[in-house]
Amino acid sequence: MNIIDLIIKKRDKKELSEQEINFFINSVVDKSIEDYQTSAMLMAMCINGLNQRETSDLTHAIANSGKRYDLSDINDLVVDKHSTGGVADTTTLITAPLVASLGVPVLKMSGRGLGFSGGTADKLSAIPGFNTNLTIEEAKKQVKDINIALMTQTEETAYADKILYSLRDVTGTVESKPLIASSIMSKKIASGTTGVVLDVKCGKGAFMKTYEDAKELAKLMVNIGRFADVRTVAVISSMEQPLGHNIGNALEVIEAIEILKGNLKGDLFELSMTLGAHMLVLSKVAKNVDIGYDYLMKQLVAGHGLNKLRELIAYQGGNPDIIDDYSLLPKASNNLEIFAKESGYLNSVDTDMIGKASVLTGAGRLKKTDEIDLGAGITLSKRIGDYIENGEKIGEIFSSSLEKCEQAKEIIENALHITETAPEKPTLIIDRF
Amino acid sequence: MNIIDLIIKKRDKKELSEQEINFFINSVVDKSIEDYQTSAMLMAMCINGLNQRETSDLTHAIANSGKRYDLSDINDLVVDKHSTGGVADTTTLITAPLVASLGVPVLKMSGRGLGFSGGTADKLSAIPGFNTNLTIEEAKKQVKDINIALMTQTEETAYADKILYSLRDVTGTVESKPLIASSIMSKKIASGTTGVVLDVKCGKGAFMKTYEDAKELAKLMVNIGRFADVRTVAVISSMEQPLGHNIGNALEVIEAIEILKGNLKGDLFELSMTLGAHMLVLSKVAKNVDIGYDYLMKQLVAGHGLNKLRELIAYQGGNPDIIDDYSLLPKASNNLEIFAKESGYLNSVDTDMIGKASVLTGAGRLKKTDEIDLGAGITLSKRIGDYIENGEKIGEIFSSSLEKCEQAKEIIENALHITETAPEKPTLIIDRF
Repeated sequence: MNIIDLIIKKRDKKELSEQEINFFINSVVDKSIEDYQTSAMLMAMCINGLNQRETSDLTHAIANSGKRYDLSDINDLVVDKHSTGGVADTTTLITAPLVASLGVPVLKMSGRGLGFSGGTADKLSAIPGFNTNLTIEEAKKQVKDINIALMTQTEETAYADKILYSLRDVTGTVESKPLIASSIMSKKIASGTTGVVLDVKCGKGAFMKTYEDAKELAKLMVNIGRFADVRTVAVISSMEQPLGHNIGNALEVIEAIEILKGNLKGDLFELSMTLGAHMLVLSKVAKNVDIGYDYLMKQLVAGHGLNKLRELIAYQGGNPDIIDDYSLLPKASNNLEIFAKESGYLNSVDTDMIGKASVLTGAGRLKKTDEIDLGAGITLSKRIGDYIENGEKIGEIFSSSLEKCEQAKEIIENALHITETAPEKPTLIIDRF
Repeated sequence: MNIIDLIIKKRDKKELSEQEINFFINSVVDKSIEDYQTSAMLMAMCINGLNQRETSDLTHAIANSGKRYDLSDINDLVVDKHSTGGVADTTTLITAPLVASLGVPVLKMSGRGLGFSGGTADKLSAIPGFNTNLTIEEAKKQVKDINIALMTQTEETAYADKILYSLRDVTGTVESKPLIASSIMSKKIASGTTGVVLDVKCGKGAFMKTYEDAKELAKLMVNIGRFADVRTVAVISSMEQPLGHNIGNALEVIEAIEILKGNLKGDLFELSMTLGAHMLVLSKVAKNVDIGYDYLMKQLVAGHGLNKLRELIAYQGGNPDIIDDYSLLPKASNNLEIFAKESGYLNSVDTDMIGKASVLTGAGRLKKTDEIDLGAGITLSKRIGDYIENGEKIGEIFSSSLEKCEQAKEIIENALHITETAPEKPTLIIDRF
């Protein structure tokens, strides 16, 4: 087999066999092909696509390119959740403790954030002392002890994905549904999970801008899961506006705690509960999603979710006192309030621009090697459909640089569109598969 | 401007502006982008195409990436010819001396062969002592002295083309009409030629397998020439079978000499005369192609073409005695005759397989760094439509290795298809633009 022939095959929109896809991934891993050949193949895949069979084979080849974990010594069923990435999306910090508080084992591997999409591992780093760099053995022991562990994706799993992703990032081949699906699912399969709840974001602040695109990606991943014996559910949720009010690592930790304290409802709360309910169904703890939702609500009201988060923080070396005293969390040295310049209804939000503004404050990275400012970020108090009074405070910006606060403020002001008439509020949960 | 944005633009099938194309080529040349980004862009161009405007802009950007020559001190009109590459195509060795013998200046830059397509520079190397490595100043002086110089393409011209071509070769992006057109025409524009006759091959032994593909490539190049003030004519000629009888460097030199001696007619002769006639029209020596053809015929019959070749060989350090004594040319140490195994008409020829067999004998290279055997090659005496008697000698193979002779023989036997009924003979000159 010859890599040039395989590239030409995909260039000419032909189907690659399982053997050919394995050859490609093996060649990437053993470095017998050059990066410029890999990127040419990725571009051909990106433009000409992969069918479901090819996507599943690619996923397996990537999953097999690194270590594969077996979690069956924890439990027959270990369920995970994954989001395709959005703004102000900190569902994991809410869902995972709530689900674990019901005795369901939760071992979640998370990545670092890139671009305007935050990463759970970064958010946890905002908690002083919290260690996300667990070995799989440490994480497994912890799940046996307290039902929950949140760790950074290890370098060992889905080795090819790291090479492919770093190339895709700089060759314009990120926005490909088969490549996105295989990247996400290969890591889930390699992690040993038996079930996964996927949160596929859809709208202005997501990779998938339209419902059709989101549906296609969701179906691809659900089918990959089916072929791999990983029970997979996909929820398509709206990313027409930031999910929560807070964007930025410490800020999002605070919002998650407020929700677990029962002080806050809204979209972030709703989506966290819905994803958690699906996790309970996959874990066979709840018969259906409504029952799962009720279970979680009872745990929340009784404070069991908050207690589980406290236990988790303490176990992983963090300071659990942050739950009662937010001043223990990092805070940016400068802040700037945003006031409405006109009256009217919040009609639409350029969510990707809000994401870019948060990166500008220091809350996110543009390159993998960028340092982030854990205390930086943005808070926004208004949702689409809300009425805004001229001069009313609508948000605040936190950054170590006042200049960056000013720049972010201008971006945000341009990203919020206010009209005289009230728009329809976007539906949060658009579809489920 | 950012290369990733430009790659994404072409990935999404959008048109690149002149500035964007210049930025891409400048970035390739100054190495501010990585090879894996260049190959991703080339794949996007290969699949999604470039329109005429983009192709012209790409051609100019490549032409401007190296030295551009000015030949106006030789003559107002300096005309070139170029073939898109075929098997047993040695028209240059016939056409160039004939045209030059009429006092028309011919300064031809040639490349080395790659794959089954031979290169004029390699064929000339088969003549003992012949030096193709002229500087532009040497070549210009020579054209002033004897109206003809044949030199290897210098490293200085169309610098970006060398980088792009070496990447295309290993990333499955060779077969793209805009990329082929810009590669060929950028070198012609940079060489300072005022007119060019293109021989676009079409058929089993060519890059362009169908008439439609060949026509599209021809039109692209003619239009590039128009925008660049290079008068360009394209002839589409058949490559359903090897053009001449001989394949291999010394063998093709012999066939060219036989034609210039008036001993041989056939397709190679016809095409050489036709291309030469077009060169005479572009040089304003002949009013039309028929008149040009007559002029060349008179030169041939009078032996002026052969004399010009003798003069050329001597001027460039070669031994002109080879014209009268072919034993002075390199010859492979082994040979093997091919005999027909059945009677019937030669119906079709897998010309690309014949080309591959000639590479196997040592007459061509697979990689740029491969050494070639100047005396190796294949002769085939039969043309499509010819009747073949069972047991009749139909060809011969020359190689330094008897084993390779055997292997090549098997390929050739499988590449010649004999049927009971006579097929239609393929038309040599299919179209002109």
